[in-house]
Amino acid sequence: MNLASNYTIAVDAMGGDNAPNKILEGINLYLKNNHDIKFHLFGDEKLIIDRISKFKNFNKNNYKITNSPNIIPDKGSVRNAIRNGKKSSMWMAIDCVKNNNADLVISAGNTGALLVISKLLLKSIDGVNKPAIAGIWPTFKNPCIVLDLGANVEFSEKNYVDFSKIGSSLFKVLFSNNSPSVSLLNIGSEDSKGNIKIKNANDILKKSNNDFNYRGYIEGNQIKDGNIDVIVTDGFAGNISLKTAEGTANFITQEIKKIFSKTLYGKICYIFCYFIFKKIKKNLDPRKYNGGIFLGLNNPVIKSHGGSDGLAFFYSIELSAKIIKGDLIKKIKQKIFNE
Amino acid sequence: MNLASNYTIAVDAMGGDNAPNKILEGINLYLKNNHDIKFHLFGDEKLIIDRISKFKNFNKNNYKITNSPNIIPDKGSVRNAIRNGKKSSMWMAIDCVKNNNADLVISAGNTGALLVISKLLLKSIDGVNKPAIAGIWPTFKNPCIVLDLGANVEFSEKNYVDFSKIGSSLFKVLFSNNSPSVSLLNIGSEDSKGNIKIKNANDILKKSNNDFNYRGYIEGNQIKDGNIDVIVTDGFAGNISLKTAEGTANFITQEIKKIFSKTLYGKICYIFCYFIFKKIKKNLDPRKYNGGIFLGLNNPVIKSHGGSDGLAFFYSIELSAKIIKGDLIKKIKQKIFNE
Repeated sequence: MNLASNYTIAVDAMGGDNAPNKILEGINLYLKNNHDIKFHLFGDEKLIIDRISKFKNFNKNNYKITNSPNIIPDKGSVRNAIRNGKKSSMWMAIDCVKNNNADLVISAGNTGALLVISKLLLKSIDGVNKPAIAGIWPTFKNPCIVLDLGANVEFSEKNYVDFSKIGSSLFKVLFSNNSPSVSLLNIGSEDSKGNIKIKNANDILKKSNNDFNYRGYIEGNQIKDGNIDVIVTDGFAGNISLKTAEGTANFITQEIKKIFSKTLYGKICYIFCYFIFKKIKKNLDPRKYNGGIFLGLNNPVIKSHGGSDGLAFFYSIELSAKIIKGDLIKKIKQKIFNE
Repeated sequence: MNLASNYTIAVDAMGGDNAPNKILEGINLYLKNNHDIKFHLFGDEKLIIDRISKFKNFNKNNYKITNSPNIIPDKGSVRNAIRNGKKSSMWMAIDCVKNNNADLVISAGNTGALLVISKLLLKSIDGVNKPAIAGIWPTFKNPCIVLDLGANVEFSEKNYVDFSKIGSSLFKVLFSNNSPSVSLLNIGSEDSKGNIKIKNANDILKKSNNDFNYRGYIEGNQIKDGNIDVIVTDGFAGNISLKTAEGTANFITQEIKKIFSKTLYGKICYIFCYFIFKKIKKNLDPRKYNGGIFLGLNNPVIKSHGGSDGLAFFYSIELSAKIIKGDLIKKIKQKIFNE
């Protein structure tokens, strides 16, 4: 039997499509090979107890349930979520972290509500005036971190500088590189490019002593090269480019599928190459990069993709585990306070 | 023999990688089946005469050359281009259009220089305070138009509104749709999303009487669906998302190639599916969408991709021909002045 776990993750078990099933499936996958985390589930207790019996890796030492009768709708307004959400699974899971009864909170629910309630309950780290959403992007080399992917539509020089520090702390915790390279995402690589805010941030970052390696601007088509570890962008351009990239990836894969399925020769080709396609699907599986990381708050918050499945939720738990074990928040605070 | 052509395109024959060869190759391809346009080439006369002999579709009725001894470097600064560029192939080609000796100018050279010199010589249409760069994007349905892709990093409500009008004029000329749908690219589809400028533009566009069909916001991952004909974005987010989309497309196709070429089985699969891959390559060929269209100036300017080849240049000539024959500038002016 397992020993009592070292860490606790508070889970909004009701957020996202097909909850709580996919949430439980993802946790079950994690529990198969890991015994270091206890899961505190918030949601419809009766429903969760009914569904959890399908999964064999849960036991009384590795999870508990707190009944939270309400659910914040995935597509509802943030205002309503705040007004009516106090007894919801999402709110209560965040509150659990706030009260130091868990180390991290994870939800696949309404992103806007999760962000606003997290800000409200957990507050920003002193010295950081806004949190960011960070994501992990695949490249030809190692994955990189891109932030902000949509938390802030209004952006200042200070946000660029803060997020460079915070993003590099995250990179160190996840990928153990002591001096990550950092760039600002811009419309050209020369110093003269971009708007006044990004230019000011570029000047500040060039002049300041950082424990990361500031490398100036990067363009959107260079992210894939994997030469930069941490890429900082404002939340408006960052969100639009993330979603455009997702759309482009979907467009290309769908067009390729269409051509293979259009003719008999194509269908035979597909069967002949079955194992190659299996490998492609595995290598390019976006679920491996599932998990938006809210950075800059006093506790870590992970947003799992609402539309994806149990395996995707498993990957966001793996990410959460790394963040807790690497003591990310402590490292961010040290970095902010030391400067 | 051809009759004298109806229209003239001024060509910067020296811009982009492998010029003037690829420029001549592209024109030669166009001249194979079309006799409606005369090409006025600007560049190193001796070099062009030497190279043109390789291409059989040129004759004394369909082209002429004006010697322009200087070349604006593809990667050089815009300031230097303006200071030293007056005798350059790019400057002289733009000047030719300005003096009404050509209907459109096309260049594969330095984008920044082309934009700034075009603004300087051709001036904005009265009532439009900034030009935009528009591009054609593939979707699951018909192609759509996205603008601004990088001409303006600072953006106002008026730019969104102007570019909705101008973009819909372009769509009508290229695709003969009398009431194109128009959306603003944003980080969510609800009215409350985005920054103050895009919200104001959304309010104005909703209230005004337009001869296009204003459809509110669109997100980056919806562009591919092809439900919106004209998508307006600020030049900063637009440029970043265009380049990120290009990078993503390249990433996916390279990763797929890598898996096919890694094992003997993969290589055999590739040979077996050769004709499928040929079809995929053809369908997804980015060269078909080559050509950034500078909109809002008194004459049309086309920027062909600097790094691509003769076939890509051919596609940007086809695009140019449609713009001239559809009398785009007249239609834009009517739309701006009528309101």
